[in-house]
Amino acid sequence: MSYSAPLKDIRFCLAHVAQTQALNGTELFAEATDETVDAVLIEMGRLTTETLAPLQMPGDAGSRLVDGVVRTPEGYKEGYQALAEGGWMGLAAAPEFGGMGLPLTVQTAVNEMQAGACLSLSLCPLMTQGSIEAFSAHASPELQEKYLAKMISGEWSGTMNLTEPQAGSDVGALITKAERDGDAYRITGQKIYISWGDHDMVDNIVHLVLARLPDAPSGSKGISLFVVPKYLDDGSENGVKTVSLEHKMGLHGSPTCVLAYENAHGWLVGEENKGLACMFTMMNNARLGVGVEGLGTAEAATQHALAYATDRVQGKVAPREGQSLGIAIIDHPDVRRMMMEMKARTEAARAICYDTAKALDMAHAAPEDERDQWARRGAFLTPLAKSYGTYTGMKVAEAGVQVHGGMGFIEETGAAQYYRDVRVTAIYEGTNGIQAADLVGRKLSMDGGETARAILAGAAAEMEKADGALMDSLKQVYKAAQDTTTWMLAQNDMSERLAGSHAYLMVMSTLHAAVLLHRGMRAAQAHMSDDPEFYSAKVAIAAYFLAHVAPEATGYAASAMQGSELHYALTPQQFAS
Amino acid sequence: MSYSAPLKDIRFCLAHVAQTQALNGTELFAEATDETVDAVLIEMGRLTTETLAPLQMPGDAGSRLVDGVVRTPEGYKEGYQALAEGGWMGLAAAPEFGGMGLPLTVQTAVNEMQAGACLSLSLCPLMTQGSIEAFSAHASPELQEKYLAKMISGEWSGTMNLTEPQAGSDVGALITKAERDGDAYRITGQKIYISWGDHDMVDNIVHLVLARLPDAPSGSKGISLFVVPKYLDDGSENGVKTVSLEHKMGLHGSPTCVLAYENAHGWLVGEENKGLACMFTMMNNARLGVGVEGLGTAEAATQHALAYATDRVQGKVAPREGQSLGIAIIDHPDVRRMMMEMKARTEAARAICYDTAKALDMAHAAPEDERDQWARRGAFLTPLAKSYGTYTGMKVAEAGVQVHGGMGFIEETGAAQYYRDVRVTAIYEGTNGIQAADLVGRKLSMDGGETARAILAGAAAEMEKADGALMDSLKQVYKAAQDTTTWMLAQNDMSERLAGSHAYLMVMSTLHAAVLLHRGMRAAQAHMSDDPEFYSAKVAIAAYFLAHVAPEATGYAASAMQGSELHYALTPQQFAS
Repeated sequence: MSYSAPLKDIRFCLAHVAQTQALNGTELFAEATDETVDAVLIEMGRLTTETLAPLQMPGDAGSRLVDGVVRTPEGYKEGYQALAEGGWMGLAAAPEFGGMGLPLTVQTAVNEMQAGACLSLSLCPLMTQGSIEAFSAHASPELQEKYLAKMISGEWSGTMNLTEPQAGSDVGALITKAERDGDAYRITGQKIYISWGDHDMVDNIVHLVLARLPDAPSGSKGISLFVVPKYLDDGSENGVKTVSLEHKMGLHGSPTCVLAYENAHGWLVGEENKGLACMFTMMNNARLGVGVEGLGTAEAATQHALAYATDRVQGKVAPREGQSLGIAIIDHPDVRRMMMEMKARTEAARAICYDTAKALDMAHAAPEDERDQWARRGAFLTPLAKSYGTYTGMKVAEAGVQVHGGMGFIEETGAAQYYRDVRVTAIYEGTNGIQAADLVGRKLSMDGGETARAILAGAAAEMEKADGALMDSLKQVYKAAQDTTTWMLAQNDMSERLAGSHAYLMVMSTLHAAVLLHRGMRAAQAHMSDDPEFYSAKVAIAAYFLAHVAPEATGYAASAMQGSELHYALTPQQFAS
Repeated sequence: MSYSAPLKDIRFCLAHVAQTQALNGTELFAEATDETVDAVLIEMGRLTTETLAPLQMPGDAGSRLVDGVVRTPEGYKEGYQALAEGGWMGLAAAPEFGGMGLPLTVQTAVNEMQAGACLSLSLCPLMTQGSIEAFSAHASPELQEKYLAKMISGEWSGTMNLTEPQAGSDVGALITKAERDGDAYRITGQKIYISWGDHDMVDNIVHLVLARLPDAPSGSKGISLFVVPKYLDDGSENGVKTVSLEHKMGLHGSPTCVLAYENAHGWLVGEENKGLACMFTMMNNARLGVGVEGLGTAEAATQHALAYATDRVQGKVAPREGQSLGIAIIDHPDVRRMMMEMKARTEAARAICYDTAKALDMAHAAPEDERDQWARRGAFLTPLAKSYGTYTGMKVAEAGVQVHGGMGFIEETGAAQYYRDVRVTAIYEGTNGIQAADLVGRKLSMDGGETARAILAGAAAEMEKADGALMDSLKQVYKAAQDTTTWMLAQNDMSERLAGSHAYLMVMSTLHAAVLLHRGMRAAQAHMSDDPEFYSAKVAIAAYFLAHVAPEATGYAASAMQGSELHYALTPQQFAS
């Protein structure tokens, strides 16, 4: 079976978990009425379910480089056209350039559906979204005029060119060079890992390229951002060559290009030597976007495994030997455990991603004096959304393979594809290790831990509203989060924080998910009589997360507070011997 | 870099963790002197490092079905020949048929090296090992005479034919039919997932096939075991056809065949309708063997990631901005964390696997009155070795990909191959869910929990020898194991046990690994002055496991004791909506 957009779950999470109705009353998002948002969700639900989801498995055959041009899998071009014609590239873009000006929360829900339906294809519009954002924030009016409308209409697509062989997580090490040439620049160098760096679905490709001017300071302070189109105004080629495509474990439909720039014409975006800052303004959204890729995959893998588990008959219920009818494997306790865990983890990731999007929206839309607080909350939650979202995608896709038994290892079922595809989401757009470092470094330090303490205070308030075993569970996670936050803030040596950074990120993510799901649970209880079947499921899934998944936090907390001593207990020689 | 057999670690685990010297004094394994065992390890270390490891990456190109015959990847045939000529198929087989009669513990160490060097190829001799075992235990002297020597010499290889499309975990549902034909039988039916079901490395392939006689009882009590060779004595084909090869996520070098039997000649192994029991006698060893596949992969993925992490330079140490030299990524705290975790998890899996092998050996070699106790210990530990070993392989290979950053997703590095290959080990030879069910069902019930309590008592004794933080950590895991064991034994409804079975297996595995590693730590401290570099590493890795990994048990324990209520809180309709 293929993906079906989970509209009810998405609406529930927006309304009752992230509580995005706070955005509707704002001036900035006056257009985002309930009716408009719902129409958008329904339309994307239809498009993903009917048009994009069928491209997922055939797309695994992969994009190919033929005579220097990337050829996408059959059907991709039509899928992309449907997105372009629907105006989907400009959902969150400014109305003056043809965008709809909707909140990032709505974009996030839309991105979840696209990622769930066909992750490989969804990366192309996602790259364009990031480019639109960068142009909107930093490009000159002339460049905006020239590029924005074409990208928003989907006629042209965008790419991000950061990585070079020697410059991965350490972007400051890049050496691609830019030389002044009149009003413009010439770009020369090689970039790797360029998603959708070339393809046959658009008329032109707009590369945003980080490069270094001859007189630039060394390191990350000497990087500038340029726009380098594949084709120039007169239709001639602009010295951008697709050298090769990477042979990847997954995401075969999405071409990952090595691009060579040879004296290509480029135009400056933002100021000279401020390129990294320009890239960073869209980093939160891009990182959230990748977390949502994990979320979308988790949802899709859950649906996919559920279909198999309810269809596949094997054995009998253990305690009833006399029973002669075979039963579907979902009725075996351990398969049921996996399905519930997949459901609960997916809803946890959705809660964190949507709540992060809301904070980033409120940072622009809230009353002036509240914006900074929302911005810091969004900044703090972003590494959680990116890492926990992608962790969830991996964990749920892994369970999806397991539910399929032997068939999970066979490519024809599609379970393995989710597992392969989602793996890179924990790596790109800043590895999950980089996210954890960002959390315990910049994000904990930006306000001396104030945002972390505000999140803890919100958790404490939610805890007061819990009962019995649910309260006990919340209390345990809360204690883990409070202890580790206190420990982290007490470390003056950043190495000590970094040693526990991954574990701390997992603790805070678990707490935040637990709190958000409990909030949703209370709303479901309040609305129960409207739709008992739906709301009682929401209650059960939240309870499952609290009882079975949230206790993980205790183990992470113990690890988070160990410090770096044992990490460095071996010399390199001892490692290798 | 390619795999290098970790001989020192293996010797340490045998001597000081599993303490296999207990076997040497026994009559059964009188041949297994220290000198013989060490010569065996050294020779396999050389063979795997020099001859088999180079086949790992090229083998990913895969075996192919050409004109009805499976063609193996280049170099496999020579690798297999080296194994055959070295007499490796018969390491644990009886000397009267040309075997060496060495203990399973030695076989386990040898299997670890083969799995680490080239998992796909290693499955072929592993299948033959299982066949040799089945023939030794159940076949008539005539069949033994005819088949054993050829399999032990490696001239012929063996396969296991259990699964059919409708009969996976529920083997009793198989319908392949056997009809009496004079002294022999005719076999007709289709079998799937047959590893090394056909290939070009041997003269004949010996299929062990489960099938049903016309008058057999239904279900698992009506299954018989037959030997069905690919070629008959006169060299003619015997009605066994390779229909197709599965298109798998990994293990591409190992051909997974769909085999069609059409009126093929078969000979009964054991008694009619007792086939499943025959298969089960070798189940412990086969399951341990798959756990060891996870262990071998974990070791290989760790070595592979270590080479990258010490070679790849990126960024500077976080707190020292002034530093101008780039540093290897292993010096970044979170990469170091991953490498230590990979090391610690690998040693934990090795400890459990070797200790399980020792128990299975002692069940045959110990004084008569101790054998039953050892057999029950081996039976109890087997699902732990299978599940925790394969869990470790997956977890460590996943970290190996992450250590590689973007390169981890690119197939050329080989990191992705470990991740893909090892995934199926959690599925075949009884899914890890089946292992967990076996643990809380048969294994806890076989003696009313006596073996579980004996393992807890051993843990308590080890705990008494611990100090400070190590003791605290052991105490916490012990409490988790004791509480969950008590809870499990108190459940009369098997559904309740099964609901927590996966979590319980993880708790018991974590405890057992923690105890074994602590035992090894004490031995390392005692031998410190002999080789401080080596033994201090052993101490540090064990301490790492206790501080950073073992606390996971607390979260699993909370989940294990929840019962089944929340698992079944959703109706099938609610799942799908």
